[in-house]
Amino acid sequence: MSSEKYVLGMVGLGVMGRSLLLNMADHGFKVSGLDKDPNKVDALEKEANGNAKGYSSAKEFIDNLQKPRAVMMLVPAGPAVDAVIAEIAPLLDEGDLLIDGGNSYYTDTDRRFLELKAKGLHFFGMGVSGGEEGARKGPSMMPGGDPKAYEVVRPIFEAIAAKVNGDPCVTYIGPGSAGNFVKMVHNGIEYGIMQLIAETYEIMQKGLGLSGEQMYQVFKEWNEGRLKSFLIEITRDIFAFKDADSGTLLLDLIKDEARSKGTGKWTSQIAMDLQLPIPTIDSSVEMRDLSKYKDIRTQAAAIYRAGDMKLDTDQAQFIKSLEEALFFSMMVTYSQGMHMLAQASKEHSYELQMDQIALIWRGGCIIRSEFLEDIYQAYKKNKTLPHLLLDSGIKQKVDGTIAGMRLVVSSCIAKGIAIPAYATTLSYFDVLRSERMPSNLIQAQRDYFGAHTYERIDAEGLFHSQWNPNA
Amino acid sequence: MSSEKYVLGMVGLGVMGRSLLLNMADHGFKVSGLDKDPNKVDALEKEANGNAKGYSSAKEFIDNLQKPRAVMMLVPAGPAVDAVIAEIAPLLDEGDLLIDGGNSYYTDTDRRFLELKAKGLHFFGMGVSGGEEGARKGPSMMPGGDPKAYEVVRPIFEAIAAKVNGDPCVTYIGPGSAGNFVKMVHNGIEYGIMQLIAETYEIMQKGLGLSGEQMYQVFKEWNEGRLKSFLIEITRDIFAFKDADSGTLLLDLIKDEARSKGTGKWTSQIAMDLQLPIPTIDSSVEMRDLSKYKDIRTQAAAIYRAGDMKLDTDQAQFIKSLEEALFFSMMVTYSQGMHMLAQASKEHSYELQMDQIALIWRGGCIIRSEFLEDIYQAYKKNKTLPHLLLDSGIKQKVDGTIAGMRLVVSSCIAKGIAIPAYATTLSYFDVLRSERMPSNLIQAQRDYFGAHTYERIDAEGLFHSQWNPNA
Repeated sequence: MSSEKYVLGMVGLGVMGRSLLLNMADHGFKVSGLDKDPNKVDALEKEANGNAKGYSSAKEFIDNLQKPRAVMMLVPAGPAVDAVIAEIAPLLDEGDLLIDGGNSYYTDTDRRFLELKAKGLHFFGMGVSGGEEGARKGPSMMPGGDPKAYEVVRPIFEAIAAKVNGDPCVTYIGPGSAGNFVKMVHNGIEYGIMQLIAETYEIMQKGLGLSGEQMYQVFKEWNEGRLKSFLIEITRDIFAFKDADSGTLLLDLIKDEARSKGTGKWTSQIAMDLQLPIPTIDSSVEMRDLSKYKDIRTQAAAIYRAGDMKLDTDQAQFIKSLEEALFFSMMVTYSQGMHMLAQASKEHSYELQMDQIALIWRGGCIIRSEFLEDIYQAYKKNKTLPHLLLDSGIKQKVDGTIAGMRLVVSSCIAKGIAIPAYATTLSYFDVLRSERMPSNLIQAQRDYFGAHTYERIDAEGLFHSQWNPNA
Repeated sequence: MSSEKYVLGMVGLGVMGRSLLLNMADHGFKVSGLDKDPNKVDALEKEANGNAKGYSSAKEFIDNLQKPRAVMMLVPAGPAVDAVIAEIAPLLDEGDLLIDGGNSYYTDTDRRFLELKAKGLHFFGMGVSGGEEGARKGPSMMPGGDPKAYEVVRPIFEAIAAKVNGDPCVTYIGPGSAGNFVKMVHNGIEYGIMQLIAETYEIMQKGLGLSGEQMYQVFKEWNEGRLKSFLIEITRDIFAFKDADSGTLLLDLIKDEARSKGTGKWTSQIAMDLQLPIPTIDSSVEMRDLSKYKDIRTQAAAIYRAGDMKLDTDQAQFIKSLEEALFFSMMVTYSQGMHMLAQASKEHSYELQMDQIALIWRGGCIIRSEFLEDIYQAYKKNKTLPHLLLDSGIKQKVDGTIAGMRLVVSSCIAKGIAIPAYATTLSYFDVLRSERMPSNLIQAQRDYFGAHTYERIDAEGLFHSQWNPNA
């Protein structure tokens, strides 16, 4: 009878939930799904060719799961997750697993983890990256929760995950909300790199006057080198994609107001709570926001006319510098994200294994890239590396690209080409290597007007001065 | 008998509360104070020379206030405010006023406002800026709450406020948390300008090699022109302030780790919730955070050595450009803050009067400056101006300073002088005047990997494409 039962049940048979189930079925797992919408139940059973069972009744669905039961949900983050928990948890028995595969806010996960722990249930927050195709063919997954309970589902997730050199792109991340947190920072890095690529496109268009075909060629070539990554690859394809009707580049016909779903914003806001600077990611959030103020931008464009933006440069030579600038900036963006993870790990006792996170990001997810192998090697060599840019291997790559980076940023700024994330990234680097920042002046100002005190380099303690000569 | 009663009572006789009371007493108001610490009660009575009464008993304190009672509190934001409310509110009668003068988080104020409204009490969140000296001699104040109840205390606050051309630097701001919100954004602007001044100091030191005496002279001159402002004035004084023991510039002996108290961070985080970009302020928050990672910076400085940072330029000429750059950046920083206020006003139905806010910031507060007169004029002319940089008067000033700004930013970036807030400010401007941003590529990427759809410039609706040539 036990052989008739299902090893994992999915609540929510939307695109992502269905794709993951089909992926599991492909790997020989007996799985089932639950959805209130009978069309989605039908769609699952049809696509699965009898290898996955769909239910509309929660009780029936739960009764037919093998114990300890593993129930995963893929529903929109927020109240929908709590609604599913309220419906499903009473049907479960002690020791069962409930896995949230959405982009839940990390404190929500911590709350649910504790609430369900009190009922003897194992709650997991699991980040899943890779979009529909990743879910179907091999995603990267970041499960957080109880490490022993994870063993129940480990074989399933390792089987369906993307593989890089045979290693599955999934590993136990840490307790409580660790999985959601790591996925959130993944998305923050994704925002940063997408913004950098958009600015690269801006430079190639306005500064170099490249056509779609030329940009396609550049990105094709870049994707065969150290920039090789999913985001470069899809950008290459986008530069080749023609509108069916007009035959023009479809990209040219797309509105420039970028949407966002919140994980980028959360990354920036939470980084500020951690007092951990991630300026490149912040810049990408700011620019998605600024893209929405089309009316103001149109009015500003009319009164503050841009001059000639063509860069006075050898095109091929500048494209070489641009590749250096983009690689430099990608390295710095990953570095900011990893720094944030290391700090969050201390703050929230996640005990994150930085090398393992790099390892499972190498495949399946949106920010997968060749460079993640370098990150993996850096943290493998030194598990407590305080900052990625301090690794000797990374340093060599920084040294080989900083000149191109500086040339690109200073040339574009002189010409009025808007490159906020590039400029911010270089500033971050220049401040990071400032042993002494000018923040002593800020401390003096704060003490002047608010008696907030200051510290001295030549003595211990807190000091206050009567700065005002007229007081 | 009524003549024996006090017109306002202050809870919390720390520096700020005591200074405000003494200011009121100076203006002939009969006021009283409450503090658990008998030393503070004594200090008040002693300093007030019999013009203010101190209490240790809440009941006695409340019983001796004229009705409707006006009780103000100046205690640390957070639980202390709720504790005072819990103690004082039961002693009050319907129609009495309770005024929180601290930097409370705006949603806390909204909560308290509603809780106390249910009890028939008028709660105010009032931002107070100016530090100790401002409180004593004339602060800028931003009260939010019920407009009718405000009339009870208006004469007191108008009397004690700073005056500019006879106008008091206080006005009714708006309902609920409007006052705290406006004060928070004031502090965000303060963070931005302080960071810009710190970077100016960095440029003058590392790029121009100026001495403290030379920097003093530059700031002295600047403070006699359009940059005239409190923050330039105190920076001038700081450049002249010698350590008593060593005789060297005290500034050189101050640690470069900048502290923050949260209002700058809140401004950035809440701006992200509003999807309203304020990159200069964000940069100032990031840099206070980065200043705390001294160990990493020291290690990074050792391996990524900076080259020669001396700018190849005529010193006097470059200082002229620097003045333009700082003025440009100050204008943009205020513009970002005002833009945020306008957006928050829509979101929270504050009905903010932008011209009035500029008016009351012209004196008493930390960000007071000559330029606020320009802001006042711009919003007086057009109360619904969508963005300050769209005003024709401001535009002229932008046009007159953009060349210096661009020169300073591109020169410093080429030399490796770290100027994150300057660079971000210029990028913001360059994006703001981009009628078309490259964010269409971000929308294409999002549709490629997540089927998030995109909008078109040539047709209504949401579209999705099968971008992947191999799918």
